[in-house]
Amino acid sequence: MYTAPVDDIAFTLKHVAGLGEALQSGALGDLDEDLVDAILHEAGRFATEEVAPLAEIGDRQGSRLVDGEVRTPDGWAGLYHRWAEGGWNGLTAPEEFGGQGLPHMLNVAALEMWNSGSMAFALCPTLTMGAVEAITAHGSEQLKAIYLENLVSGKWTGTMNLTEPQAGSDLAALKSRAERADDGTYRIFGQKIYITWGEHDAAENIIHLVLARLPDAPAGTRGISLFLVPKFLPDAVGNPGERNDLFCHALEHKLGIHGSPTCTMIFGDGRYGEEKGAIGWLVGEENKGLACMFTMMNNARLAVGMQGVAICEAATQKAIQYAKERTQGKAPGTTATGMSPIIEHPDIARTLLTMKALTQGSRAISFACAHAIDMSHAESDTGTQKFWQERAALLTPIAKSFSTDAGVDVASLGIQVHGGMGFIEETGAARYLRDARIAPIYEGTNGIQAIDLVMRKLPLSEGHHVRGFIEELKAIAENVRASNKPELGETARYLDQSVADLEAATDWLLDAQTNGRVAAALAGATPYQRLFGLALTGVYLGKGALADVDDGQGAKRASLCRFAAENLLAETAALKDRVVSGAASLEAARAVLG
Amino acid sequence: MYTAPVDDIAFTLKHVAGLGEALQSGALGDLDEDLVDAILHEAGRFATEEVAPLAEIGDRQGSRLVDGEVRTPDGWAGLYHRWAEGGWNGLTAPEEFGGQGLPHMLNVAALEMWNSGSMAFALCPTLTMGAVEAITAHGSEQLKAIYLENLVSGKWTGTMNLTEPQAGSDLAALKSRAERADDGTYRIFGQKIYITWGEHDAAENIIHLVLARLPDAPAGTRGISLFLVPKFLPDAVGNPGERNDLFCHALEHKLGIHGSPTCTMIFGDGRYGEEKGAIGWLVGEENKGLACMFTMMNNARLAVGMQGVAICEAATQKAIQYAKERTQGKAPGTTATGMSPIIEHPDIARTLLTMKALTQGSRAISFACAHAIDMSHAESDTGTQKFWQERAALLTPIAKSFSTDAGVDVASLGIQVHGGMGFIEETGAARYLRDARIAPIYEGTNGIQAIDLVMRKLPLSEGHHVRGFIEELKAIAENVRASNKPELGETARYLDQSVADLEAATDWLLDAQTNGRVAAALAGATPYQRLFGLALTGVYLGKGALADVDDGQGAKRASLCRFAAENLLAETAALKDRVVSGAASLEAARAVLG
Repeated sequence: MYTAPVDDIAFTLKHVAGLGEALQSGALGDLDEDLVDAILHEAGRFATEEVAPLAEIGDRQGSRLVDGEVRTPDGWAGLYHRWAEGGWNGLTAPEEFGGQGLPHMLNVAALEMWNSGSMAFALCPTLTMGAVEAITAHGSEQLKAIYLENLVSGKWTGTMNLTEPQAGSDLAALKSRAERADDGTYRIFGQKIYITWGEHDAAENIIHLVLARLPDAPAGTRGISLFLVPKFLPDAVGNPGERNDLFCHALEHKLGIHGSPTCTMIFGDGRYGEEKGAIGWLVGEENKGLACMFTMMNNARLAVGMQGVAICEAATQKAIQYAKERTQGKAPGTTATGMSPIIEHPDIARTLLTMKALTQGSRAISFACAHAIDMSHAESDTGTQKFWQERAALLTPIAKSFSTDAGVDVASLGIQVHGGMGFIEETGAARYLRDARIAPIYEGTNGIQAIDLVMRKLPLSEGHHVRGFIEELKAIAENVRASNKPELGETARYLDQSVADLEAATDWLLDAQTNGRVAAALAGATPYQRLFGLALTGVYLGKGALADVDDGQGAKRASLCRFAAENLLAETAALKDRVVSGAASLEAARAVLG
Repeated sequence: MYTAPVDDIAFTLKHVAGLGEALQSGALGDLDEDLVDAILHEAGRFATEEVAPLAEIGDRQGSRLVDGEVRTPDGWAGLYHRWAEGGWNGLTAPEEFGGQGLPHMLNVAALEMWNSGSMAFALCPTLTMGAVEAITAHGSEQLKAIYLENLVSGKWTGTMNLTEPQAGSDLAALKSRAERADDGTYRIFGQKIYITWGEHDAAENIIHLVLARLPDAPAGTRGISLFLVPKFLPDAVGNPGERNDLFCHALEHKLGIHGSPTCTMIFGDGRYGEEKGAIGWLVGEENKGLACMFTMMNNARLAVGMQGVAICEAATQKAIQYAKERTQGKAPGTTATGMSPIIEHPDIARTLLTMKALTQGSRAISFACAHAIDMSHAESDTGTQKFWQERAALLTPIAKSFSTDAGVDVASLGIQVHGGMGFIEETGAARYLRDARIAPIYEGTNGIQAIDLVMRKLPLSEGHHVRGFIEELKAIAENVRASNKPELGETARYLDQSVADLEAATDWLLDAQTNGRVAAALAGATPYQRLFGLALTGVYLGKGALADVDDGQGAKRASLCRFAAENLLAETAALKDRVVSGAASLEAARAVLG
């Protein structure tokens, strides 16, 4: 059974990702360490005791569509209510609307734990948080007044309606349409697919944020507007009133996250209301919908990254528990009688340590990204603000892709540790792989993240931002070298090499872009993204290993850091190689694909 | 939809794996190329037109246990009958018992195609083939006379009953027991788990090969005997007669291969017959059962490797088809209007070429392993025979592990290419991942394969065999260099480096063993196994690229070889590094696992 790793999370927040300095500097107002610890412990308790025990039934039953209504798994509506009543939905939301205005770092830490408990469950509030963000940033005062309080409390939930059958990664192709009504509202028509928690029975209203085109909109992405379309139209006092003209037409039959209803939504076909058309309100300006959506998409990407971290943690815990209990064969050098726990076999220990290192690495990267978001809000100086905005922008695709790839890999390794038991659904190890597999796909596939990283993030401030970041990484590597800790083994050498690989690949990509070799840069984008994630894993584990914290865990942190450096970081050389010389062979080999 | 890649398979058999030379030298008797081609085409047709169309219903319905009987999915019993009537079950079986006595290379080629069609279906004959082999090698004349003809024809099917709850990788722990009866038969008692196709409705009898202990057997693996235990006891004329005292107690609820019934079998609890005890016949000698089982296990391991190759091929075909049809965004440099097929995007093309290279590499390794088995049977000179036996022994764990790891990786990449569609079960891409995930586990986990490779296979002939093999690989790499083909790009350099990495890691492991550093050798076993597989992938693709065959595919082979070399082979340096320096950090980090 999963137990929230509150101490690991707190350590990474404070001593690796930057929360410690931020608390000390006063950048986060009167937030103090005691409050941070209290929130993490309570979130951990809820994830461990309330969410995790309902994960399996959610997977087995799934959400079901019955007579046009979605029934969530037994116990899930009650779980959601308890969760919302705990105030968890509004952790980072504006205090003006009932939120707690706390930093994102706390929210992503809590998200990790909810997602370890049940990724399918945690998706629901993740979407609501995105809706709160978009309405807060772009909604009219009227919309804020009507919707935010209920969304912040979690009484109502939110969705993102982007994808259509022909428009996935390429939103320019979307066809849903909006017509202006005389009263300033709009009528929305169209079909949306893959709408997470688009319909369910856990909240009294569902607020859809829908991308659609106005009749006179320009073609492509510049002709997309964002609309707020509630399931029930709020009445004069703000309670759910008449049903709006939209419904869930079907649920997808998916590999994983069975508890999360993935809906095909139909807007405006006349099923409800007197006239056809779902009633919607514009969010932001006409034809500027994509920009509004991107506001929520960046944080949503980090939230999906947390799903990767969460699956890493949960799958690793489960595999370690099993490997301690299961006995088979005799471990080399053992003096005990009888069979050895398989954790004593070197191949199993290597597997588990790899899982552990990827978990810590992806957690550190994701928390560092959340820290950058917090700092960009906390700082008032525009230069400093820009610095942190760029840091968050740079880290977002890495946090999303590296963590979600790690989630799949670690879940798969977890199955392997279980042997035959891992393939049996009742064991629960397979569910982690099934759930994890969506995370590299949604919120922009990891290939899209790589394009974003290389084409939009590396050029920030003409490449100065990423180069400055690499200098920071070199400084940490230098600290590791200077520490001369024998328990870090060859860590410094591997860190130096990986950061050098990162720098060489970065230079090559920036040069390729400057010189118009776009296809070549794109060919190396995914290997580069992984290279960046691995180098950061090494550096952040090194930073943690140097932290002067007397919690009795220092030796473990150092030896895990050494393991990661000496076993995982040599791959960066191969990845750099793919970036700088893979493109030519790719172009030459296109004919192979017919 | 899957189409059997008959031409690719024939090319790899003949020009990479050694079938061409073997046909020319007469080592395979009067088998000629026309017959080989005819068999491959007909097997391919059956896999494409008959097996593949029933895969999806098999996955959706699964095999079900109803009143103690297992019902296979709709249409599967008929499919099995047509398959057996085609004579496919006896391809390599002795002609004396109705088989065709053909080389293993043809059988593994056909196995690849059945498994691409449906891995769950192809498992049934795979087990029967193992039973035929064990009975042929170790059964008494009486057992051969009664059982072989019906097993060879496929009228009856076979199983392997090894695993018990406490005895998986470690068979020394098994507890099923056998008692001698007065008539020379035995009574078998015990519970076996994970018994593939242990009970079903597609054949009139099922012949279980069961490992059990005699009352006076020594402890451990030297006290295990092998028994033949039929579901129905053959009557005087050899037809299925009375029901034996065994039954399927439950089916496992698995991640994948749903059509294949995975049974918990109970022997000898008195459900059938007058007295308790399933009637069994000894196969081979008492207490020598494990050696008998290993006879079939080696070929079974290669057969599981073919499942990996099969999933690679099927998942790659599906992803390529989708990537040609699906349009999103604009590929760099395109001049076409509208959205581009996603196959034109560099990141997707890179992914598909990686899938293709892993498919071809694992196929070549597996076929080379089958070739070595064939040659070990064909050669009469004991020295040459030993050489080929050692080659087969060396290649078996690599073929099993590299191909099945590739199966999981390629299936996962295939999902990724499909984007959101990949996560929807109806698409079929997810099934490949679910099915593929068992292959690195059963027939000895890939970790067990790695231990076998390092501890038992490298030391063959005091390390001379593997060193000689590496010299052969160097010679092929040298041929690639000498060919000076510009379309091979930097292939020669990468091949040289990878083979050098393989040699260095091999030397280190042999030295570690010689000097008693067993734990250190075991720590590097899995990275070494992958290193070996990658180096062989490069070398075999290089060998294929040099083949002088005028089939219009030469340029494609060369460019895929170059892609593989320049994109995949740089990883071998990192793997060598893990082998030679990963062990110390692993030992130091054990405390991390608590």
